[in-house]
Amino acid sequence: MDGRGLPVLLVTSLTNIFYLTGFRGSAGAALVGPSELLLFVDPRYTLQAQEEACGVEVIVAKRGLLRAVGAWLRKRDARRMGYEAAHLTCAEFGRLVSDTRPRVKLTPAGGMIEELRAVKDEEEVARIRQAGRLTAEVFEEVRGQARAGVSEADLAAEIEYRMRKKGAEGAAFETIVASGTRGAFPHARASRKLLEENDLVIFDLGAILSGYAADMTRTVYLGEPGRKVRSLYQAVAGAQQSAVEALREGTKAGDVDAAARRFLKARGVGRFFTHSTGHGVGLEIHEAPRLGRGEKVRLRAGFVVTVEPGVYLEGLGGIRIEDTVLVGVDGPEILTPAAKDNWVLS
Amino acid sequence: MDGRGLPVLLVTSLTNIFYLTGFRGSAGAALVGPSELLLFVDPRYTLQAQEEACGVEVIVAKRGLLRAVGAWLRKRDARRMGYEAAHLTCAEFGRLVSDTRPRVKLTPAGGMIEELRAVKDEEEVARIRQAGRLTAEVFEEVRGQARAGVSEADLAAEIEYRMRKKGAEGAAFETIVASGTRGAFPHARASRKLLEENDLVIFDLGAILSGYAADMTRTVYLGEPGRKVRSLYQAVAGAQQSAVEALREGTKAGDVDAAARRFLKARGVGRFFTHSTGHGVGLEIHEAPRLGRGEKVRLRAGFVVTVEPGVYLEGLGGIRIEDTVLVGVDGPEILTPAAKDNWVLS
Repeated sequence: MDGRGLPVLLVTSLTNIFYLTGFRGSAGAALVGPSELLLFVDPRYTLQAQEEACGVEVIVAKRGLLRAVGAWLRKRDARRMGYEAAHLTCAEFGRLVSDTRPRVKLTPAGGMIEELRAVKDEEEVARIRQAGRLTAEVFEEVRGQARAGVSEADLAAEIEYRMRKKGAEGAAFETIVASGTRGAFPHARASRKLLEENDLVIFDLGAILSGYAADMTRTVYLGEPGRKVRSLYQAVAGAQQSAVEALREGTKAGDVDAAARRFLKARGVGRFFTHSTGHGVGLEIHEAPRLGRGEKVRLRAGFVVTVEPGVYLEGLGGIRIEDTVLVGVDGPEILTPAAKDNWVLS
Repeated sequence: MDGRGLPVLLVTSLTNIFYLTGFRGSAGAALVGPSELLLFVDPRYTLQAQEEACGVEVIVAKRGLLRAVGAWLRKRDARRMGYEAAHLTCAEFGRLVSDTRPRVKLTPAGGMIEELRAVKDEEEVARIRQAGRLTAEVFEEVRGQARAGVSEADLAAEIEYRMRKKGAEGAAFETIVASGTRGAFPHARASRKLLEENDLVIFDLGAILSGYAADMTRTVYLGEPGRKVRSLYQAVAGAQQSAVEALREGTKAGDVDAAARRFLKARGVGRFFTHSTGHGVGLEIHEAPRLGRGEKVRLRAGFVVTVEPGVYLEGLGGIRIEDTVLVGVDGPEILTPAAKDNWVLS
């Protein structure tokens, strides 16, 4: 913050607020300065904030969070404040301006906390590792239930139930079970559709544990796959492995994406890979960095990212394989250790 | 829009986009004009948008949604566009300005779609009614499992599993089971804590069905409650009933809140009611209107709102009773029909 000449930063992303203070309510704001960390909450959260935000000064705002922030700034005679441009709406900005004007100069300050969050410390990695193991275990248990006649939604319900019973806070995102031609939608939801013989079935799931998420995808085939499906599966598996192996300290994020893309292209199926290779994962299921075309960010030890190439063919279905992977000092470590080779359920 | 002099409105709230177009992806933008409705999606959603957004012109934006919106505006030589100030971040606004400047004047236009959404048509009410019945059924089934030694998290998992098995898309929000002193946090999550004898236990749950949510809270007591707890429960139940009865066309939202508050105050426990009486519910679990102090919005037939007074006593716990209620032409209709009188589980 010193480097950017910001005496104080207003944090309005709830995830960033949790990261800084430990508070997990559904509304709040934080102010970070060289010697202060303040948490503003509404009266619903008085007790919860005191319990969760240990060692943080909690201010209970009875007439609006931003108004209370404005009052604090006036009291301290603050002249300049950064704000999170990606986490403040135009409407909130308007309120903030009217509550602090004309004294305080507001400066957009994007992604400072996200940058800190991208590098996970040991404790954070341990939590994601635990979430990843739990996710893999649940999938291994439920894979056996994937057969013709079972609905996508019932499998998704079973997955999320087992996550909870194993101690997860819940699913990090709505579990995807997409079978047959529905799998051609990369973000299909689980529907009432019943699985059928000769369906490709995509499972995309992730548990959340102590606030930290894992993210994993496996694809299975119900029956005996023909040559085309087999070669597509091998192409995706190979692309995924290439990209995982590219996850080294100092590598550009875009080069990891390129590794997956190159492999699929060499197999003649590059055009069916319609999204990015991966994204950071941690307190949020999508966070920095993005492993996409041309991304110049260099990987650092402690980054945790997904690697999830896929192919999507209208009328046939989709195949995606995804792991959550730690960029370690000694190379990549897969945190979602479910098998990928027993994908044929015949 | 005519009244506000806006030839076209940029819609960036995903819920509003779903309401207008039927598209349920995780990223998109819509443009609404007198004779057009356009949906902008990224390439991941090409197929899904075509399937879900029937009769809507879909534009696949390969290099950013807002950039594609800017290009469309330039092509049409548009001079003015409204945007959703509450659903556009400062960072997005900056990108929009740089992509449309200097031709297009951007005007904040808050809540136009939300206003439309507040009044539910018959089809929408039918969906919420169905979600409400399902929610009530699940609670009636799971209530019997609430006993000393069972964890809050296991009950929450059971609730969400049963919702899914009954055909819900899932829980509309993270199910709350808060027992004993934890119930004093109005927004406590379900934890690993085991229920104990003489605990008050708050269940706050809601299913989502065909996109529409219900929201319901019941409180039970494990054992034989003393006089204080009984009188608190009766106070909350009475306050809730008063507020439900106040739900009439033309009544001010603030007067519904006042009805609950007056009842609790008369019982000497008004100070323990630390939040608003309710909120609209529909595609989102919290939407317009707010039933809070001094709210001047007048209720209209077709509004669907929660009525959820509660009391929270540090060291003792909490009691909250909540229904989702339709403001009907002939008076209020409770859409979450679970019993409230069998709260003593001894």
